Amino acid sequence: MSFLKEIRPLGERRNYSELLDLSSGDPHRGGIKPITFVRQVLAACFCPALLEDDSLPLDVKQRAKSLLRECDGGSVGSYTESSGIAKIKHCVSQFITRRDGGVPSSPDNIFIMSGSKTALMIILKLLIRSEDSCRTGVLIPVPTYASITMILEEEGAAIIPYHLCEEQGWTLQLEELHRVLQAARKTCNPVAFYICNPGNPTGHLQSRESIEEVIRFAAEERLFLLADEVYQSCVYGDNAEFYSYKKVLSEMGSNISSTVELASFNSASKGFMGECGFRGGYVELVNLDPAVMKYARTLFSTRSCPPVAGQIALDLMADPPKPGDPSFPTFSEEVQSIKNTIRKNTGRIQEVFAELPGISCQPLKAGFFVFPSLHFPPKAIKWAEKRQMEPDMLYCLHLLEETGLHVKPGCEYGQRKDSHHIRLFVGTQENIMEDALQRLKTFHTRFMKEFS
Amino acid sequence: MSFLKEIRPLGERRNYSELLDLSSGDPHRGGIKPITFVRQVLAACFCPALLEDDSLPLDVKQRAKSLLRECDGGSVGSYTESSGIAKIKHCVSQFITRRDGGVPSSPDNIFIMSGSKTALMIILKLLIRSEDSCRTGVLIPVPTYASITMILEEEGAAIIPYHLCEEQGWTLQLEELHRVLQAARKTCNPVAFYICNPGNPTGHLQSRESIEEVIRFAAEERLFLLADEVYQSCVYGDNAEFYSYKKVLSEMGSNISSTVELASFNSASKGFMGECGFRGGYVELVNLDPAVMKYARTLFSTRSCPPVAGQIALDLMADPPKPGDPSFPTFSEEVQSIKNTIRKNTGRIQEVFAELPGISCQPLKAGFFVFPSLHFPPKAIKWAEKRQMEPDMLYCLHLLEETGLHVKPGCEYGQRKDSHHIRLFVGTQENIMEDALQRLKTFHTRFMKEFS
Repeated sequence: MSFLKEIRPLGERRNYSELLDLSSGDPHRGGIKPITFVRQVLAACFCPALLEDDSLPLDVKQRAKSLLRECDGGSVGSYTESSGIAKIKHCVSQFITRRDGGVPSSPDNIFIMSGSKTALMIILKLLIRSEDSCRTGVLIPVPTYASITMILEEEGAAIIPYHLCEEQGWTLQLEELHRVLQAARKTCNPVAFYICNPGNPTGHLQSRESIEEVIRFAAEERLFLLADEVYQSCVYGDNAEFYSYKKVLSEMGSNISSTVELASFNSASKGFMGECGFRGGYVELVNLDPAVMKYARTLFSTRSCPPVAGQIALDLMADPPKPGDPSFPTFSEEVQSIKNTIRKNTGRIQEVFAELPGISCQPLKAGFFVFPSLHFPPKAIKWAEKRQMEPDMLYCLHLLEETGLHVKPGCEYGQRKDSHHIRLFVGTQENIMEDALQRLKTFHTRFMKEFS
Repeated sequence: MSFLKEIRPLGERRNYSELLDLSSGDPHRGGIKPITFVRQVLAACFCPALLEDDSLPLDVKQRAKSLLRECDGGSVGSYTESSGIAKIKHCVSQFITRRDGGVPSSPDNIFIMSGSKTALMIILKLLIRSEDSCRTGVLIPVPTYASITMILEEEGAAIIPYHLCEEQGWTLQLEELHRVLQAARKTCNPVAFYICNPGNPTGHLQSRESIEEVIRFAAEERLFLLADEVYQSCVYGDNAEFYSYKKVLSEMGSNISSTVELASFNSASKGFMGECGFRGGYVELVNLDPAVMKYARTLFSTRSCPPVAGQIALDLMADPPKPGDPSFPTFSEEVQSIKNTIRKNTGRIQEVFAELPGISCQPLKAGFFVFPSLHFPPKAIKWAEKRQMEPDMLYCLHLLEETGLHVKPGCEYGQRKDSHHIRLFVGTQENIMEDALQRLKTFHTRFMKEFS
């Protein structure tokens, strides 16, 4: 078969100079520069001798001093409370209140962890009762990122998948939720509903109405809401606005706003900061029964403290430089530049996809990823069947082998039968994105031609 | 009763100026200063602009540059491999080989985690098969620190306690191990043996012979060895020497040295560095079946990466400045000073204990803690009984209330019936230790007098 000569068997010599890894949501790997203010404060916290250094801006020194005062022995090397440094939890709660236009948030309901994944694991331990004869069920979207499935499996939960509607921009469909929930009740005990908004891998951003629908659904069906909102600061679509579950919940009738249980996750790894390696995230718990809350505190407290660098990153994310502060001009310029870069990247992605046959994408609004649909010719499907592999997996492997571009196949996230996707990270330098798009274009064009 | 007036009820006004917390093993909280080299390298890694700074020593800059080269995008904010940065695992394996006088260690068997506790949890997941009708049993010493018990419970293991012999310096007794193991076989499936050496809370340091005995026991009984060796660099007793399980195992007959499965844990939180807040630890796996090793890799790889600051701390612990390096003089002076401080502290502790009635302590050799026995007068025991509390718990509560000194009661670690202890951290500044000892002395003297 001729295409086997063109699309070389895996393992043959590669003809690219450098690997280009857009498989995970890691801005710094993509060449995005860290925020200077964040790094200067951290350097001063690690090495307080720098506080004597004239080269650091005054607000950097003040922030570092104020953070060090919260550390036992004035050292970031001391253990902290297992739910995080009290002052940083306070700072995060104020950030939430500002974000939500005044909705109160209490530091007592904030738990800082090494990441939102760890926080999610602990919440699941709360929800999953192993002594129940019936398994605890959690509704999760399809597609969703693999870690959530692994965490649920590790904790022994029954996974109840609901499909997002790609044709309507990866939106949630209420009928679908009711349908899968009713079916699941026959085999498990559904207790929680998980949603990632803005979505990973879809880049979908829920409207306020959609969030209200989900909350009402959770209220009626007595489901605990797990709102993974780690991409909340990454919204770039025209007229796109992020609404938090907390805010929308607070504005619904009190029979709902004071009863629906919610865990909202956020992280310093995502958004403009992109400090994935520091490991800092938090969860805010809302409307939990006091007895459950007490148990939650116990569960969180058995952990060692979250890394202090990650906690500090959260503090700086929650309370960044303000106009008038010495660091503000550089800070705002850097943040704006990152936002512009992502906007330009997504624009270029849409331009390139529009030119290419067999690839289509929902409007890009938010999050770190695009998740275009690949429409493979029947020959390509057969080629994959013969190799007993998912076509998008085989596509990604060959894309990597041929061009050095590493992206993830849709099959790793779950997708409707006979639909195929790739997931591409959008948070890179512009020249890196251009390089990636050229590699993708060259490979894709040849691939489609060969199999047509 | 007169002593109730003297030993004030809990909650009454405190008469001390400052809380003194020796309840956890946290050197920086105890006033020990961080190692300059560690903090300078970290500051330069977080803020690479400092690499242009003339104030940093050349070896600090070189190390920071070399570490940044291992980070994607040259940033400590990028994700790393979930088992840690390859070069740091290599560095750790070389450290182990040097420590053990040449016994080979492979980076492939090293897994860096956010701490030894997390690593232990993953190993337990490997060992515990929930589908077994019989629960998986793990032997753990009494006394032991509370986290290990909590981790085992969380993972669903059956706890098989074996008592250390206090009278013989908290040594392991082979007959005791056989006795509890045989008894346990009736109710669960014992698969692993956990030991903390040097011991927490006991400060016991195992002899080479004792380690050989344990290894032979593990070989005969087919037990997986979990060697918690996080205090390995903290050895201060006269003629005391640390032997790693790995080294001793490697020097036994090949039917043992190549078969007994071992996980050895270490951390950047303990020892001279004491960087608890960075969250960096590792486990080395030895003699695991390749199939199990494959499963271990999968389990470790589902985690997010360990914090990069913690990983860097491990690199610096494993490969500290050498004679001739610009940072060496300061580094070695700082390390020596910390060691001297701990030696002086333990000397003072023994002097003060020798003066006090009703308190006795085994010879101090290693680790971060002393765990003296408290011999309460019968009146004190009755006083506690009336309050339905453990006497040492009540003692610690009142010690805290009266003097502001926070130490932990033996009942939190497990102890023989009718024996009572407190656990005291030894890694503090000398003046802080003196302050703590004076508070303890005043309270203890009055307490014993009141109840005699």
